[in-house]
Amino acid sequence: MPDAQAVSARTRVVRESHRGVYDRETAYQVLDEGFICHVGFVLDGQPFVIPTAYGRVEDNLYIHGSAASRMLRNLDKGIPVCLTVTLLDGLVLARSIFNHSMNYRSVVVLGTAVAVLDATEKLAALKSLSEHILPGRWAESRQPNERELKQTLVMRLPIAEFSAKVRQGPPIDDEEDYAFPTWAGVIPLQMVPGTPENDPRLDPKTPVPAYASRYSRK
Amino acid sequence: MPDAQAVSARTRVVRESHRGVYDRETAYQVLDEGFICHVGFVLDGQPFVIPTAYGRVEDNLYIHGSAASRMLRNLDKGIPVCLTVTLLDGLVLARSIFNHSMNYRSVVVLGTAVAVLDATEKLAALKSLSEHILPGRWAESRQPNERELKQTLVMRLPIAEFSAKVRQGPPIDDEEDYAFPTWAGVIPLQMVPGTPENDPRLDPKTPVPAYASRYSRK
Repeated sequence: MPDAQAVSARTRVVRESHRGVYDRETAYQVLDEGFICHVGFVLDGQPFVIPTAYGRVEDNLYIHGSAASRMLRNLDKGIPVCLTVTLLDGLVLARSIFNHSMNYRSVVVLGTAVAVLDATEKLAALKSLSEHILPGRWAESRQPNERELKQTLVMRLPIAEFSAKVRQGPPIDDEEDYAFPTWAGVIPLQMVPGTPENDPRLDPKTPVPAYASRYSRK
Repeated sequence: MPDAQAVSARTRVVRESHRGVYDRETAYQVLDEGFICHVGFVLDGQPFVIPTAYGRVEDNLYIHGSAASRMLRNLDKGIPVCLTVTLLDGLVLARSIFNHSMNYRSVVVLGTAVAVLDATEKLAALKSLSEHILPGRWAESRQPNERELKQTLVMRLPIAEFSAKVRQGPPIDDEEDYAFPTWAGVIPLQMVPGTPENDPRLDPKTPVPAYASRYSRK
């Protein structure tokens, strides 16, 4: 069901509008499967786009970084941001060059990110970031200390103004092109984890935890 | 060797500056292995970040889309853009939460994209986009016609002001944490192609071309 708040002139999908979706369920599925976003912000009229990890707690997204980072120092001022998550699902090979496409799911969130100052929310946000990427890892790691927390800036971006765009399925060719003699279809693409590699300084008797050896985003 | 032109106050890597690289060879390896970028541009003070495909011909990047798209209609005016390509190589599991990281290679290009008006350059740019994603496909597809070329806008972004950032290798923990009793290492991540799926309307006797069945980005 479309989220009335989400759709604005700024987030309405203009091109191929049939691919635009505005319900939170679809958007959150994409946000929960991905864990790298591209954050856009503006400095002196110049846009910057920086890849970073994120976590989600209910209707808020969290990003983090060094309190000294250029990106987060500027977000701290409350400038507008755009946070985009893209999952690539395949190459779509049509008969015509023109109708070649990709299968993908993407979400765009617009808003103003603010620094998380409350210590409890900050720790919960950091835990959500860690658990979002690798469930189970937080409890088995050495927890953040006061110095590290001070060095870390956490920003909260409410998921209020957003849209998702989804393309799935086979190529769609012009009717007269279906007779064109070339292969047509989809090459699926997937982010696949490899075998975990021990840190050279690890005691080799240390077992690889299941969350590492069976890592999956689905 | 660092590219003198590339390094500016805007592209100098500020955080973890030892990960910043400014030579074209490294940047072009990343640009050539990837094929999805995130383009940032500004409308009324609001940044937008949109995923799209790209191609490279020598020292220029090309993106394309519908002549009616919001993104490309605005780039056409010559507003500043940021084009970012990110390749994710793995999750880096340190003993401390604080030192968890990711292995990645990313490139950021700043500049002003301009519309390609010359018909020869436009067709060459479209071919570079297609061959960049799937070498061999262009020649076996139905070529663009006049109507389709008119509907397609191609933008050129010179690779002049850029930087790359690279993190590879095992986790780096604080010395006192190496005794902490948890697994540490890297979970490699890779974009892997699956078995090509025939278009349901394809004559099933049509062989799958090698560029589809043996697709690889390396």
